[in-house]
Amino acid sequence: MTASPPAEAGFELHPQLAADTAVVGDLLLSRVLLMKHARYPWLILVPRRPDVREILDLSDIDQMRLYREITEASRVVKTLFRPDKLNIGAIGNMVPQLHVHVLGRFTTDEAWPRPVWGSGPATPYAADALAERLAKLSAAFGGVA
Amino acid sequence: MTASPPAEAGFELHPQLAADTAVVGDLLLSRVLLMKHARYPWLILVPRRPDVREILDLSDIDQMRLYREITEASRVVKTLFRPDKLNIGAIGNMVPQLHVHVLGRFTTDEAWPRPVWGSGPATPYAADALAERLAKLSAAFGGVA
Repeated sequence: MTASPPAEAGFELHPQLAADTAVVGDLLLSRVLLMKHARYPWLILVPRRPDVREILDLSDIDQMRLYREITEASRVVKTLFRPDKLNIGAIGNMVPQLHVHVLGRFTTDEAWPRPVWGSGPATPYAADALAERLAKLSAAFGGVA
Repeated sequence: MTASPPAEAGFELHPQLAADTAVVGDLLLSRVLLMKHARYPWLILVPRRPDVREILDLSDIDQMRLYREITEASRVVKTLFRPDKLNIGAIGNMVPQLHVHVLGRFTTDEAWPRPVWGSGPATPYAADALAERLAKLSAAFGGVA
């Protein structure tokens, strides 16, 4: 993204999200994370705002930014991975920092047709597969930092 | 809502959604449904457009309308039911018609902190409880039809 991010004073990624993901880059509002779960092309968007738990807690303009970024992330997942279905969710029952899941599902995947949330432990990426996926994703988002 | 709904030629509610829900009313884009599951204040928004499976399949303006209506539905659930957490999801692995879940969760509810999707059979409403909830919801949306 070329636009400068708005102020993000006080934002810190929740340690659980930091542990479960790798960073793809920053969009105008959201940090884009890749869930370290090799079975699914699974992104997580985290608005870089402190103390926000619900989409409703964001200002109107930030809500619009977030929705735009959900659409952008959906396009990236669809284009790169050609899933059978996109799954989008803002749940946050376990991790209280607002985060939105955007992932691709395949009718052949392990959890299909159930949701992935709570579907069991993650399958780790091989190190080079993770690096390759992150590079592809970053390029698809237009070279986010 | 006072604005006239845009054309909706060819839209028909998927029979599974029709069976599982009661109609609250129509917003500008979406039909608002109440999931017949008494344990959760659980709305479902269905854009009245034919043959749409993903949010990305909607036109840009319809996407914006849908996002606005998700925000509106979130406000209604939050205001009427004061849940501990909102859960929002566009999944659609089972029912291919685009629909978005907007529901309130309580730390005391049966499935907490797991997602409600796939959490087991619905608990029916008593007939008068359902009618009362529908009336309250319709009023909270500003008297949708």
